Amino acid sequence: MNYRVIFNTIGKIAIILAILLVIPTVLAACLAESSWWALLTTVGISLVIGLVLTFAVRPKTKAIFSKEGLVIVALSWLYVSAIGALPFVISRVIPNYIDAFFEMCSGFSTTGATILSGDRIDELYGTHKALLFWRSFTHWIGGMGVIVFLMAFESGSSNRGMHVLRAEMPGPTVDKIVPRARSTAQILYLLYIGFTAVEIVALRIAGMPTYDSFVHAFGTAGTGGFGVRADSIASYNAACQWIIAVFMILFGINFNLYYLWILRKFKSAFKSQELWIFVGIIIVSSTVISVDLALSNLTFVSNAHDVVRHSVFQVASFISTTGYSSIPAGADINAFPLLSKGILFLLMFIGGCAGSTGGGLKVSRVALLCLAVRKELRRVVHPRNANAVKFEGKTVSDETLNGVARYFGLYMLILAATFLLLCIDKGENLTVESNLTAAVSCINNIGPAYGVVASGYYMYNWFSKLILSFAMLIGRLEIYPIILTFAPSTWIRR
Amino acid sequence: MNYRVIFNTIGKIAIILAILLVIPTVLAACLAESSWWALLTTVGISLVIGLVLTFAVRPKTKAIFSKEGLVIVALSWLYVSAIGALPFVISRVIPNYIDAFFEMCSGFSTTGATILSGDRIDELYGTHKALLFWRSFTHWIGGMGVIVFLMAFESGSSNRGMHVLRAEMPGPTVDKIVPRARSTAQILYLLYIGFTAVEIVALRIAGMPTYDSFVHAFGTAGTGGFGVRADSIASYNAACQWIIAVFMILFGINFNLYYLWILRKFKSAFKSQELWIFVGIIIVSSTVISVDLALSNLTFVSNAHDVVRHSVFQVASFISTTGYSSIPAGADINAFPLLSKGILFLLMFIGGCAGSTGGGLKVSRVALLCLAVRKELRRVVHPRNANAVKFEGKTVSDETLNGVARYFGLYMLILAATFLLLCIDKGENLTVESNLTAAVSCINNIGPAYGVVASGYYMYNWFSKLILSFAMLIGRLEIYPIILTFAPSTWIRR
Repeated sequence: MNYRVIFNTIGKIAIILAILLVIPTVLAACLAESSWWALLTTVGISLVIGLVLTFAVRPKTKAIFSKEGLVIVALSWLYVSAIGALPFVISRVIPNYIDAFFEMCSGFSTTGATILSGDRIDELYGTHKALLFWRSFTHWIGGMGVIVFLMAFESGSSNRGMHVLRAEMPGPTVDKIVPRARSTAQILYLLYIGFTAVEIVALRIAGMPTYDSFVHAFGTAGTGGFGVRADSIASYNAACQWIIAVFMILFGINFNLYYLWILRKFKSAFKSQELWIFVGIIIVSSTVISVDLALSNLTFVSNAHDVVRHSVFQVASFISTTGYSSIPAGADINAFPLLSKGILFLLMFIGGCAGSTGGGLKVSRVALLCLAVRKELRRVVHPRNANAVKFEGKTVSDETLNGVARYFGLYMLILAATFLLLCIDKGENLTVESNLTAAVSCINNIGPAYGVVASGYYMYNWFSKLILSFAMLIGRLEIYPIILTFAPSTWIRR
Repeated sequence: MNYRVIFNTIGKIAIILAILLVIPTVLAACLAESSWWALLTTVGISLVIGLVLTFAVRPKTKAIFSKEGLVIVALSWLYVSAIGALPFVISRVIPNYIDAFFEMCSGFSTTGATILSGDRIDELYGTHKALLFWRSFTHWIGGMGVIVFLMAFESGSSNRGMHVLRAEMPGPTVDKIVPRARSTAQILYLLYIGFTAVEIVALRIAGMPTYDSFVHAFGTAGTGGFGVRADSIASYNAACQWIIAVFMILFGINFNLYYLWILRKFKSAFKSQELWIFVGIIIVSSTVISVDLALSNLTFVSNAHDVVRHSVFQVASFISTTGYSSIPAGADINAFPLLSKGILFLLMFIGGCAGSTGGGLKVSRVALLCLAVRKELRRVVHPRNANAVKFEGKTVSDETLNGVARYFGLYMLILAATFLLLCIDKGENLTVESNLTAAVSCINNIGPAYGVVASGYYMYNWFSKLILSFAMLIGRLEIYPIILTFAPSTWIRR
């Protein structure tokens, strides 16, 4: 294990975190909010840690292997979550450290699960705008990835780059847009910044206050879901809701496709099977849920526009794994009719496209799982026929299909373990449904869950919050980095 | 497709069904119950169908392939469920045919899910003992398999035998106990009859009425779960409950091991990893649930014996996928504390050992899934190391590991589809929890589910019942036979 490279890289991440924290610090100072010193203290702490690690631990060689890549990614994400939580604790806005850690894991992992109650969020919107800004800004950072951010601005060896990029980028396979990892990272971030800027402007024009536009654009871009009001997006006008719904879908699409569009390679971009499956699922789900809502007697869907808006919004929110809600105060996702709840529950598992900021299993992985299953069924009937499986115009190797099936097995085992550990919690009104959907929601980086935790996770005790924090990071980093960093065999020298 | 062999075999199954139906017919006549003519009519119908198919459709060749094996198994099980339902409909005990079909799918698949309410069961216990006997007897037949039964008494070609045996026997791999399929089937049925007889005698000695002893021994042997009282096993004495708990565990163990014990090959029998994992899960789960129950303030666990008895009974019932309950009237599984419910929920998926009458994924398949996942994790860290995976003292091929992972993927997709289709039902008080546990419970052949369907499935509409009927057969036959029989590609000539 190349410890020096690991510590050195985390040092750089620490410096970047300090720089990023300057933004809310300045905001706090401008708004004359009391949290400015808490933010500034954290900037100082992270800067010191960063400088010490970067300059004191100089790597002898930059060569790293898959193992180091995984460990770097896992420790970087744990670092930003652990230190990013400090401003909340120091300012006593979230006095309990585990609560703040949960909130930051939820932020960076783009989950959007919160331990703050609706009333508390409304209160903080009045008094601590800078901290709420930081809370949502972590979504934006986490969406594209902290290491990808580092790579976009650092000139490292490209060998090292791809190992790390692979560990942090979502999806069953990683396409390099351009040969050099650094250029790929830069292109991705440029697109990301561009789309976010467009959304901010669009929301502003639609009538959302400037501060709120920034916060919600961050939440949408990272497919996170932190908001600044107790009722999420429900109290904004319909135009804002439609804009957010559209951008949730856009950020759930593979960023490589946008790059192809910019290069005017429309044909190859529109050939993407994953894109059409994603769009198809959204259309079918929205239609069925619209019918289901129209047949229900919910008071907040009084006309056809309401029905379609709430259907599309919730579908976009769940499949992109954002977790925003357009359901007006007084109700929550539990009020939805059963079929709608069932569909949304399954959408949680699917998630966005590979190479998007969305979580979940990813559309392409689910598609490959279905193809693997179809191949297996054919093999049982015709043991000697071995038809090749094609996806995205290429023949898919058995190794890839089996890898997806094994990944799915691992994913379900972790889901089962998370669910079981949550059941230890004796919290009031927790049920099999709430614990199961909480585990599903956190692993897939969505945020809301059914039952008593529909609006927040404050019902859980510290142990459950810790479990869910790890579940969120496991989900965002696609299992391997976190699990393997805590496996003794990774650290034993062979 | 060799249609002649398929129809001919189903003809033989029809004759066997007619013969088996004679038993409850005689019982009805002896007890002077009005259902005797409904049973006799069904005997006649099945006998005519059987004789026509057997003698009119003589196969030109007995050679069959994997495909025919699957279709024979699927159609045989559909046949016995469809015709086995007639006595209930003709006697107006279950006037709705779909209800009766559900009840028989539940019976033969050894699920034990019922559309009868508790009150109705108590009523039938007084007036229709013969029909309740038949209902439980289907568990006993389905436990070991209808085709295995045919094979034990018919001299077929051994090539045909293994194809069919493989399609009907549970577990990731099928061991032939002895080289000839027919002898294997005979040994299995002899052991099965022996164990059932011992349980009947034990229950009788413990004070259970003779009729009840038979019915519950059938329910235990097949790991089914149909009872004759509204509160399942709760109102029998503690000795009876312990006997049933022990036998549920015994029938969840691979029958091959019993054969090894009889041959006095104790060493190889006790080397079975699957056995020890199964026993280990039971001990750990029972212990945790005991603590959880002891800490709760449930009224029916007033002393240490109650705590242990209810814990062991429910664990044995869920992991063996039987579904009997020892929880006294007035409460049901919903009354259990959350951790206990969570553990039992996960036990549903595991199920019994391969080669037992239990359902679920099977212990060995779950173990192989864990091994596949561990191998995948190691591969990520050390891409060049390829350590062999060992299970039951043998090296497991990658093909087997991948097959298990793909099977698991297929299984979860079917579970998701079943859950979604159940959500269409607008039945009162149905929830995500009730539909999810109902789907899990039926696919894994357990019976009870959480929420409003804890005590029965009469809340569901006809469409849901049909879906669940197929889910039960899919679970019992391990997916492939049912799915492939309804896939057009199976029937298209290449």
